Amino acid sequence: MEFLKPGFTREDLLRISDEDLPVLASEVRAFIVDTVRRNGGHLGSSLGVVELTIAMLRKFDPFNDRIIFDVGHQSYPYKILTDRFDKFTTLRLKDGIAGFPRRTESPADHFNTGHSSTSISAALGYAKARDLLGEKRHVIAFIGDASLINGLAFEALNYVQETNTRLIIILNDNRHSISNRVGGFSTMLARLSANTLYRRVKNSIKRHAGVRFSRPLEKFRDFMKILVKPSNMFDELGINYWGPFDGHDIRRTEQVLDLAKSYYRPVLLHFTTKKGKGLPEAEENPTKYHQVAPMGEAKGRTWSEAASEIAEELARKDSRIVCFTAAMSTGVKLEHFARDFPRRFFDVGIAESHMLTMAAGLAAGGMRPWVFIYSTFLQRAMDQLMHDIALQNLPVVLMVDRAGLAGSDGDTHQGLLDISWGRAIPNLEIYAPCDEGSLRDAMLKAAVHDGPTLIRYPRGRIPVQNLAPALNDEGIVKIHDGQEWALFAHGSSVGAILEARRLAESEGLPLPAVYEVRKVKPLNSKIIHDCAERYSVLGVMEENYMPGGLGEAVAAIIAEGNFTRPARLVRFGVPDVCVKHATQEEQRELYGLTAEDVIARCKPFLRGHEG
Amino acid sequence: MEFLKPGFTREDLLRISDEDLPVLASEVRAFIVDTVRRNGGHLGSSLGVVELTIAMLRKFDPFNDRIIFDVGHQSYPYKILTDRFDKFTTLRLKDGIAGFPRRTESPADHFNTGHSSTSISAALGYAKARDLLGEKRHVIAFIGDASLINGLAFEALNYVQETNTRLIIILNDNRHSISNRVGGFSTMLARLSANTLYRRVKNSIKRHAGVRFSRPLEKFRDFMKILVKPSNMFDELGINYWGPFDGHDIRRTEQVLDLAKSYYRPVLLHFTTKKGKGLPEAEENPTKYHQVAPMGEAKGRTWSEAASEIAEELARKDSRIVCFTAAMSTGVKLEHFARDFPRRFFDVGIAESHMLTMAAGLAAGGMRPWVFIYSTFLQRAMDQLMHDIALQNLPVVLMVDRAGLAGSDGDTHQGLLDISWGRAIPNLEIYAPCDEGSLRDAMLKAAVHDGPTLIRYPRGRIPVQNLAPALNDEGIVKIHDGQEWALFAHGSSVGAILEARRLAESEGLPLPAVYEVRKVKPLNSKIIHDCAERYSVLGVMEENYMPGGLGEAVAAIIAEGNFTRPARLVRFGVPDVCVKHATQEEQRELYGLTAEDVIARCKPFLRGHEG
Repeated sequence: MEFLKPGFTREDLLRISDEDLPVLASEVRAFIVDTVRRNGGHLGSSLGVVELTIAMLRKFDPFNDRIIFDVGHQSYPYKILTDRFDKFTTLRLKDGIAGFPRRTESPADHFNTGHSSTSISAALGYAKARDLLGEKRHVIAFIGDASLINGLAFEALNYVQETNTRLIIILNDNRHSISNRVGGFSTMLARLSANTLYRRVKNSIKRHAGVRFSRPLEKFRDFMKILVKPSNMFDELGINYWGPFDGHDIRRTEQVLDLAKSYYRPVLLHFTTKKGKGLPEAEENPTKYHQVAPMGEAKGRTWSEAASEIAEELARKDSRIVCFTAAMSTGVKLEHFARDFPRRFFDVGIAESHMLTMAAGLAAGGMRPWVFIYSTFLQRAMDQLMHDIALQNLPVVLMVDRAGLAGSDGDTHQGLLDISWGRAIPNLEIYAPCDEGSLRDAMLKAAVHDGPTLIRYPRGRIPVQNLAPALNDEGIVKIHDGQEWALFAHGSSVGAILEARRLAESEGLPLPAVYEVRKVKPLNSKIIHDCAERYSVLGVMEENYMPGGLGEAVAAIIAEGNFTRPARLVRFGVPDVCVKHATQEEQRELYGLTAEDVIARCKPFLRGHEG
Repeated sequence: MEFLKPGFTREDLLRISDEDLPVLASEVRAFIVDTVRRNGGHLGSSLGVVELTIAMLRKFDPFNDRIIFDVGHQSYPYKILTDRFDKFTTLRLKDGIAGFPRRTESPADHFNTGHSSTSISAALGYAKARDLLGEKRHVIAFIGDASLINGLAFEALNYVQETNTRLIIILNDNRHSISNRVGGFSTMLARLSANTLYRRVKNSIKRHAGVRFSRPLEKFRDFMKILVKPSNMFDELGINYWGPFDGHDIRRTEQVLDLAKSYYRPVLLHFTTKKGKGLPEAEENPTKYHQVAPMGEAKGRTWSEAASEIAEELARKDSRIVCFTAAMSTGVKLEHFARDFPRRFFDVGIAESHMLTMAAGLAAGGMRPWVFIYSTFLQRAMDQLMHDIALQNLPVVLMVDRAGLAGSDGDTHQGLLDISWGRAIPNLEIYAPCDEGSLRDAMLKAAVHDGPTLIRYPRGRIPVQNLAPALNDEGIVKIHDGQEWALFAHGSSVGAILEARRLAESEGLPLPAVYEVRKVKPLNSKIIHDCAERYSVLGVMEENYMPGGLGEAVAAIIAEGNFTRPARLVRFGVPDVCVKHATQEEQRELYGLTAEDVIARCKPFLRGHEG
């Protein structure tokens, strides 16, 4: 590499000549492709914004100005060019560089992200803080076109005019959500992009490049009228719209940013870019190259694949079944369903709240909607689940993917709240299957239940062989009988307690009974009550935050029960902390969710093994 | 009354002549004013839509078509005119007519509401269900202008074009949120309303009234071009916009609805109305008459008043403090703060998600934002609390008003999830004060805490005298020592356990120790552990759903503790059900949250009182 060398800092970036910048851009691209191939991560979005990022970092000071990335999976070039080149090979590894902006990682990261559409709200907050504290800095929200259709971004756009402050919104329009973008808004952006004024705009910029404008300069306003399209939604909302510009032309981009820096009103700069730019296979198939698995990651049938196949099977028998995703058809594996049932498939874009309420409407209208959503994104639609689905007791099925510890995407992407939050929602039934048999069992029951059901399942591969009997009507499945102690778990933790039983055997400990808690809510309290009576130690393991989890539900049964000598409870779950990026296995070790932990913590309470 | 008589049904409405409809409208208004004065309820919105509702009910069949009200506080005329006139005097009373649409109440209510901005999503769901099931009916979303700026409504508007279905959106534009509406969107609506095309539009309608159009009729399209304003956001989103029309002109409204019925594409009909119409005081002061308390309701200093006064006091000392509300400045009593600190006050409109993320941005930028929000509406921003505030450990204070049982607004407005959901969020501290002293104590601590704090307080009056010592650093405050049993409660339940102690005294039972759990998270587990050791019965009361509540936290301490004979736990909380409208007192009785319940359920476990 000619420019990107050990010790590279943003200061070095400022010293590179205009002519050499495209070389730097290629080097950044090559470095990203290489690192992501090795470590896994988001590829296409970052490749698309290399030039935009270079221009931005030459025109703004990342350590004083506030640059807020939306979602943040496009922040790799930014990280590399803000003094993190040397560490970037640790991307997404435990204790390494995070896959998203993190304030604790660098003074150039100003707002943590991971979920979409927060950047404009956060930037408005930063801008008002600047105004109130009398500071001098630019505030920039850097947002993709797919994020703009989420309601949160719209609420912020609507509020811009009220704040009466300066703000620069950079719209990175790559015409793609994670998969294709949807909705009327996209059509509007496409129309703007096709506008033939572009050539005129380019010439205007050429003429005015380098000119700085004082506040009420009429000449500037006239010039801006050329830039601004006669009618679009941003104007309607009181935000100046400039564009579209080619986001891969560094020189022009720098000129536009210069103009925006001297402008005194909120402005949205519309750049068009190519997702996956510079990597032919990613340019051709942006959905596939949106996120890439690390080299050597084990292959196999995933939970998502199993879930979508069973859903399709059910949909063939029941024409009332329709399926929803919010821009995640690839992640939740609904592509096949979408092809086979185009009229019964809805991809609403990144609009989780709307998705749940529309599903409620379909259910009220006599259909049976199945909503496929990552656990972490379900957090975006909790009121819709409570207010629109649960309070009306509507038969909507929530297929909650990536539940539990989710690995290297980091703290913003863990699925640790669905059980705690879901348990408090009336009418909602909750399943957490541990294998394909129990997944099918749960889905068959959900398909005929006259109320809402939440089925949560983990990220990754589904066990090759079933761990528990496939059919069960009691909600809790006894896998093994035992002596002195009993272990309970749901979902991905069932494997760990089964392994703990094997360890106990090899250590000569009494063998614990093993129960799969397939149905977390309503919980079969009788079985737990009986075990609390019969065994002296109950271990409960779950990949969920401990407050509000299954462990507390079991605790309440024990503490309220009428026992002469109740069982001692030992809970295994995720403690009340933010879970950093690492592999799922590393996270399980970190939080004591392994078979070894079960033995270590329960053994002291078994007779003859105290202390 | 001439028309509105016992037994009045929608069939009667169809028989009234055009000339007599204004008389009916006055009768409906008088009846609403009378009922709301007696029972309390939402006044202004319903008065504003009387004519619109009459026209709608004459042109659509409420028992076959699907009319979905947004929020639903404007549904009183609809309820009265859809065969509920006779029962309407029971409005908001226990077992009476609900203050919002409820499917269980009437086949004319098609979707339960209470929170804003769900109607377009739900209507799209109903419309797709109709298409897939091959049914014939109109689907209508009836939405106010203030609800339109919420992100959920925008997500739905954006998706309309993708659904390729027929849908009628009736925009009831009264230029008011609960208080004044905000944002760029409002400016756009105002501009549309002022458009002088209106006269032309009226004449066009006159000419075309009664004409029915077949699908690709070019003449119709030409006609529609006159109706459609050349540029507005709805057009950009692929939704035909017609309007504005006078929503108080029944005849014209019926003509517009007739046209819309025969149109084949999604259409938004923009009606302007006057909030509070027909009641001079409500027309003049729409904010005050948005919601009216029932006659004879006790007056006194409220929790909201106390909280906002303390906030103002703190803001005088700390210039970093800013306050937020989402269209609720009256409800949370921030009007005074807004007047005194205009630059440090933000009313974002009905945009709770944006509010929390913008607050996070301000906090990241060095400020100390205080967000005032009803507990039930915090459900709309849970991911923003988790993802934007808690994971970054930002010093945002959430002042959660109307927490616990909230009374006659019904199941959509109870504040029963904040503790269960909040307990699972890392970094979040939670207080639930029981009186003004503990409220002040919590707020002083929140003001200097370097992370997020949630302070929840009830609807209604704050105790005249403090119940517990004002200052406390342990989180749990001992109010009384006791023997054999101990009672714990937070917030509004502290009064009940104090009363239980008095009852115990009068019944000659051992006197329970009484503890106020001021800080629910992190919980002082040592004090609870000590009590579990020392007492044989622990009672825990809270106005929150039991799953995930304080009761379960206490249960976990008991079940995991190393006791020879742990205390028996008795939990008092809201069970896992939907809480219907009734007074707060009636709700407390219904769910066993009274002093009498404490005695009845704990007594059998006290020595000498078994069985």
